[in-house]
Amino acid sequence: MKNKALLMISLAGLLVWGCGGEREQVQAAKTTEVDAIEWKLVTSWPKNFPGLGMAPERFAKLVDEMSNGRLKIKVYGAGELMPAFEVFDAVSQGSVQMGHSAAYYWKGKTPAAQFFTSIPFGLNAQEMNGWLHYGGGMQLWEEVYEPFGILPLAGGNTGVQMGGWFNKEINSMEDLKGLKMRLPGLGGEVLKRVGGVPVTLPGRELYTALQTGAIDATEWVGPFNDLAFGLHKAAKFYYYPGWHEPGTTLEFMINKDAFSTLSPDLQSIVKIAARAINQDMLDEYTTRHVTALESLINDHHVIIKQFPDAVMKELAKVSEVVIREQSKQDKTMKKVYDAYMEYQVGVRKYHLISEDAYSRLRQ
Amino acid sequence: MKNKALLMISLAGLLVWGCGGEREQVQAAKTTEVDAIEWKLVTSWPKNFPGLGMAPERFAKLVDEMSNGRLKIKVYGAGELMPAFEVFDAVSQGSVQMGHSAAYYWKGKTPAAQFFTSIPFGLNAQEMNGWLHYGGGMQLWEEVYEPFGILPLAGGNTGVQMGGWFNKEINSMEDLKGLKMRLPGLGGEVLKRVGGVPVTLPGRELYTALQTGAIDATEWVGPFNDLAFGLHKAAKFYYYPGWHEPGTTLEFMINKDAFSTLSPDLQSIVKIAARAINQDMLDEYTTRHVTALESLINDHHVIIKQFPDAVMKELAKVSEVVIREQSKQDKTMKKVYDAYMEYQVGVRKYHLISEDAYSRLRQ
Repeated sequence: MKNKALLMISLAGLLVWGCGGEREQVQAAKTTEVDAIEWKLVTSWPKNFPGLGMAPERFAKLVDEMSNGRLKIKVYGAGELMPAFEVFDAVSQGSVQMGHSAAYYWKGKTPAAQFFTSIPFGLNAQEMNGWLHYGGGMQLWEEVYEPFGILPLAGGNTGVQMGGWFNKEINSMEDLKGLKMRLPGLGGEVLKRVGGVPVTLPGRELYTALQTGAIDATEWVGPFNDLAFGLHKAAKFYYYPGWHEPGTTLEFMINKDAFSTLSPDLQSIVKIAARAINQDMLDEYTTRHVTALESLINDHHVIIKQFPDAVMKELAKVSEVVIREQSKQDKTMKKVYDAYMEYQVGVRKYHLISEDAYSRLRQ
Repeated sequence: MKNKALLMISLAGLLVWGCGGEREQVQAAKTTEVDAIEWKLVTSWPKNFPGLGMAPERFAKLVDEMSNGRLKIKVYGAGELMPAFEVFDAVSQGSVQMGHSAAYYWKGKTPAAQFFTSIPFGLNAQEMNGWLHYGGGMQLWEEVYEPFGILPLAGGNTGVQMGGWFNKEINSMEDLKGLKMRLPGLGGEVLKRVGGVPVTLPGRELYTALQTGAIDATEWVGPFNDLAFGLHKAAKFYYYPGWHEPGTTLEFMINKDAFSTLSPDLQSIVKIAARAINQDMLDEYTTRHVTALESLINDHHVIIKQFPDAVMKELAKVSEVVIREQSKQDKTMKKVYDAYMEYQVGVRKYHLISEDAYSRLRQ
């Protein structure tokens, strides 16, 4: 199905400033009829889901605008073309050209992927972006996805997540034993190590799982998304901070063969649109979490609780051990682990006298 | 002077995936000779200066790539076409199409501009981006620059800056009295209120001013840029944190008449390239500050000092008063002040249980 779009390569009325500042009309109108390229993008989020699901929609809009309609990307929510967790295979096999998801969902394919979303007690949003774009992170990510024929791009960030919704108080490490909690990625592995039972479920199944008691607790994102899912109606306590995901990065995935067929300007447009959306999502979350939190507290009387310091300290220790151990089991994961940790040690030294020192002034 | 560029509207070899997944060649090669639009962009930074000066260079490259060479932007360093602080007037008058600078330099034109760079004890980088892009900040910025015929876009962020280079120890408020310090924007006003002497100087004059004793202290950016200017050779102490600029936003300025002559796709390309560069600068600083700080400490034996808590608390109080007072004197500034403060109160409540709570775990 081709879309015979009438593309206005609209040089009509373009004006150029010459060296002397004079205006000069340089080109008459030119209209060329070309076929628009049509791509499919599948996501792991419900269609138009706030934040996560809007990022690919906005990405498609930017690409459409910048390419003057030459590249049309149609976005599908989870369950429309395929289930949430089949996105990776679909992009890899080329049955769709793009996906929007989170890399840690693919730990079964390649455990190193987990470092490109977020790891317990790891980098925050600003640091993840620094690592990915100037610290060698993106090159590693490309290497990790290379065997699957997928080109990854950072596709948004939620900031530090909330600790999650609990139907049980967490006062000590004892309370984590036997806790059935939806917690993907390495956070789940840490929970397992301290005696809990981690579960992976797509977002739209969380409410029911929590309400029916199939799980005792769940993390999702933060106030903005959690409110949209109504999780406050199914749990007693809302815990902070999200130690398990301190700067969750989302991902765009592009089938490499599809990408290679694009002209260089369209390739650049796709990459830069993703870069802009990567920041746009964090800007939106930073703002919308605020009013959502106010609503959760004032309208829904949610009880906000802080994890005890002793529990955080213990989980930080266990996390370090679990992540180191798991990384040893896979050569690629070990390589990414080493690079990530080196970056983390350095950036924390600097942030201790900059971002963190300023943050301390406000507490 | 026109540039007769041969633009390949290169649809040659473009492949489209149809619904059934089959490939189909849709268009033969098409080459059209059109005139490239040539723009000038002037900056307040030395040519190719790390971080600040590279942002407009990279912006121009992205626009060139995405537009397939249809819009060529030539970047000029401070002093090449005009001095650092004449950028605003040049863009306003249309003698150049674009500028890259920092809004607080224009407080003499419109004092409200200061809120769009950074204010003492104000929003950090993540919060500034949230405010600008989802909290109504950009609309206000557009309103503030409207009388000057300038369209503003956020053009990078340095993160929390360093407190600056001092040839005098700061142990109490007494030590700020009579202190001659390069400190632009509202930070300078705060220094004046506590008995200091703020000075505004372009970056490239700082080293000499510090070395000759014309000033006792200067802030600039942070390790990456400060090292490049050799400021450690002219001062004894390097203080933190940068209370005066906790999340410095840079700016792209576009002459509105010039912008209106662009086709919609080029307008979108310019805006999205700026958005990508806005994040790119922070990513670079976050990474490069780390190694620069290590070099300052290990190779140059710089003495790092923290401002005393009592001084920070007093400066925070004075800042609040000064910013409120100054804002009352100008109707537009008051409007921006009210909006900024409302956003700040809200976002801090949320960040206290998210970003700041996580940051505390690492201290």
